[in-house]
Amino acid sequence: MVADTMAVNALSVEDVLKHWQGHRRLTRRVIEAFPEDKLFTFSVGGMRPFGEMANEFIGMAVPIVDGVASGRWEEYAGTKAATKAELLAVWDRQTREIDERFPAIPVHRFAEVDKAFGQWEMTGIGTIQYAIDNEIHHRGQGYVYLRALGIEPPHFWER
Amino acid sequence: MVADTMAVNALSVEDVLKHWQGHRRLTRRVIEAFPEDKLFTFSVGGMRPFGEMANEFIGMAVPIVDGVASGRWEEYAGTKAATKAELLAVWDRQTREIDERFPAIPVHRFAEVDKAFGQWEMTGIGTIQYAIDNEIHHRGQGYVYLRALGIEPPHFWER
Repeated sequence: MVADTMAVNALSVEDVLKHWQGHRRLTRRVIEAFPEDKLFTFSVGGMRPFGEMANEFIGMAVPIVDGVASGRWEEYAGTKAATKAELLAVWDRQTREIDERFPAIPVHRFAEVDKAFGQWEMTGIGTIQYAIDNEIHHRGQGYVYLRALGIEPPHFWER
Repeated sequence: MVADTMAVNALSVEDVLKHWQGHRRLTRRVIEAFPEDKLFTFSVGGMRPFGEMANEFIGMAVPIVDGVASGRWEEYAGTKAATKAELLAVWDRQTREIDERFPAIPVHRFAEVDKAFGQWEMTGIGTIQYAIDNEIHHRGQGYVYLRALGIEPPHFWER
């Protein structure tokens, strides 16, 4: 059994944290790339402006780390950032909080199924993966907004 | 050491395959959602049409599975799909090929650093993760194209 579990190990907790923080650094650069007056106003196809998407990422990130860690699912309590500077300040605070709290998640909680925010039934790692994927997905949309504004987005592969 | 390795196990090989195929099912639905005459022509901000992005995913998927498995990195040899039907046919063939070949990747290759296609130095799992992230990223751009065309994209959370 031990050999089996080891044999199929593909990604460690440390890898997941590194991978997420790499993506978060890229998202930060995308936020920075938006002109202040477009971040919360510009969009394509009737979608949300990128600043609103970034607030969504913030509403998920640390609350998910805390929920997976503790089993208590609390909505993000901060006020929504309304400027680029506010967004980046909260972003950087969450970067530190994730680095501090992620390694303290009890190991069994990654595989345990829980109802995230009382709604989404997934394993701990599934919920974290969802947050990362959701960030990649919407950030890709931010790339289109930047291109539509004539701005070169940061390289996707730089993390 | 054994206990340590187990303790930090977050995602198994089986999980990674399931996760990827779930995303691939969603990407298939995005391809399907495009009108035939827009799939290879429509774009926003001077970016590539979604059909070209889908051809990129195809060029990466099975060649990466094969490269991680064998250490031989061969560019995708098929001709580029030029219609929706061609794209979906190759997509479905690759779905079967990935299901067959992924579980046969030698376990040590996931953690081993290799130079994918002679160019990108990453672990096996890192290269696979890159392919998945790249697909999520560009598919998110496809969502903007669909919205700009007045078409409701499939739900992101349905896999």
